[in-house]
Amino acid sequence: MTAGIYAARQQLKTLLITKDFGGQMAKKAVNIENYPGFEEISGLDLIKIFERQLRNHKINIEINTVKSVEKNGEIFLITTGDRKKFQSKTVIAASGADPRPLEVEGEKEFIGKGVSYCVSCDGPLFVQKTVVVVGGGNAGFEAALSLSNYAKKVYILESGAKIRAEQIIQDQVKKIAKISLLAEVVLQKIQGKSFVESVVYQEKTSKKIVTLDVQGIFVEIGSQPATSFVKDLVDFNEKDEIVVDPKTSMTRTPGLFSAGDVDDVPYKQVVIACGEGAKAAISVSIYLQKNDRT
Amino acid sequence: MTAGIYAARQQLKTLLITKDFGGQMAKKAVNIENYPGFEEISGLDLIKIFERQLRNHKINIEINTVKSVEKNGEIFLITTGDRKKFQSKTVIAASGADPRPLEVEGEKEFIGKGVSYCVSCDGPLFVQKTVVVVGGGNAGFEAALSLSNYAKKVYILESGAKIRAEQIIQDQVKKIAKISLLAEVVLQKIQGKSFVESVVYQEKTSKKIVTLDVQGIFVEIGSQPATSFVKDLVDFNEKDEIVVDPKTSMTRTPGLFSAGDVDDVPYKQVVIACGEGAKAAISVSIYLQKNDRT
Repeated sequence: MTAGIYAARQQLKTLLITKDFGGQMAKKAVNIENYPGFEEISGLDLIKIFERQLRNHKINIEINTVKSVEKNGEIFLITTGDRKKFQSKTVIAASGADPRPLEVEGEKEFIGKGVSYCVSCDGPLFVQKTVVVVGGGNAGFEAALSLSNYAKKVYILESGAKIRAEQIIQDQVKKIAKISLLAEVVLQKIQGKSFVESVVYQEKTSKKIVTLDVQGIFVEIGSQPATSFVKDLVDFNEKDEIVVDPKTSMTRTPGLFSAGDVDDVPYKQVVIACGEGAKAAISVSIYLQKNDRT
Repeated sequence: MTAGIYAARQQLKTLLITKDFGGQMAKKAVNIENYPGFEEISGLDLIKIFERQLRNHKINIEINTVKSVEKNGEIFLITTGDRKKFQSKTVIAASGADPRPLEVEGEKEFIGKGVSYCVSCDGPLFVQKTVVVVGGGNAGFEAALSLSNYAKKVYILESGAKIRAEQIIQDQVKKIAKISLLAEVVLQKIQGKSFVESVVYQEKTSKKIVTLDVQGIFVEIGSQPATSFVKDLVDFNEKDEIVVDPKTSMTRTPGLFSAGDVDDVPYKQVVIACGEGAKAAISVSIYLQKNDRT
């Protein structure tokens, strides 16, 4: 959205194709406190302002998915999920990331039946239930904080010994008695009949296998960049993120740029993604000027 | 300020030394429309929110200038303008940039007597006067827009043939009859008795020398990074900006980071500087963990 605002302000003929506004940020259940300019705001409210600000500018918006981006000579050909075609001189891939799955037994089977990747969507379904959050980063701790408003008991499962969440969020969690942290444990299985009834995990040091009765599992172990539509035009790093020139945000294909959680800028934060979006749009403008293609 | 918010949220023992809040941004006379989250806000108002948000966190704030940063073994020694000493394990230089002077005859002589580097500070002194803005980038055009609220006539002087201001801002300026653009002209001299009375410029193509009666000159030709206090610890690019690793924001001195308009990230925008500040603070935290110095 920031790339869109910047491109439109430079009077570039801009088309924004997106399946929704805000991506992961709109689903954040806990208020955002570290986006400069807002002491505390929900992801959804912040996204609403971004959208209003975007629509103040002259920009075409297509609510759709992108199936593929190809380059034909100097021109990009963009095909949407429903086979619409668009052409452009430059493309910014700012497609964000999707939740990374656990890949354990029972996960796929119980999606929507206790397994969830979205606390703000599904958290309210677990009033007075016992739930597990898998992942000890900021996202996991924030999910636990949010779930503690509904659930009777919340466990955070983290496979590592080191907790990666910011200290300030760890301290908030420590104050809430109904949240317990289980570190150095490996989730092995999700079990149940029609709905989730328990999880099985192993304690790394003692090798002990433990079965824990729970009704919900929230997966917060990071994300997978959404890159399939440009896969033949870019290079990837070991995290499957799009490799960009960090100064210009350009990929290995001239005219194809990338910004935000989908690229290899190392830290995933709202304000960083916004900054990168602005960079990419300015780079597009300079690229078009240099190539006399305005 | 973003680096401060991020450092404090990670429970790092953080000292922020600054002579004021907001730097150039607090002096912006025209509303900011391209910071995501605010459709329109003055730089000063945005900075006030940033400051409140910063002060919500546990952070020490020292209103002061920094004279020097030295590294002694693994420890940085920071000396303020009034010779206070502080020690730290890491430093983020986020000192921004100061206005770049014209370096023409009469400039220094008439500072405060018609020559100004701050429209929001001095603009209101020029009601019904004729003023010149030097510089055809966004800053120059925004200055002219703001000055048109006070002045009888505003000239924008730009030495190049190509106007660098965003098209949307150029279009706003075009609608205001009392603003005139003089492109491809070189300012040669500022003249007057006690106060500015005229400027002399040369038209590049015709070589004609022109004297223009004006009472005010606003200089908007970019900025100089404020780097003297770390000059022995960092490398500089051709614009005298601090060279950083674009992924981590670290300078050539381990533990010394830099973010914002002072470093060599190519585009100077509020949201980009904020993103870079967040990056630098996260890098500091990772650096301290790696070096077991938390």
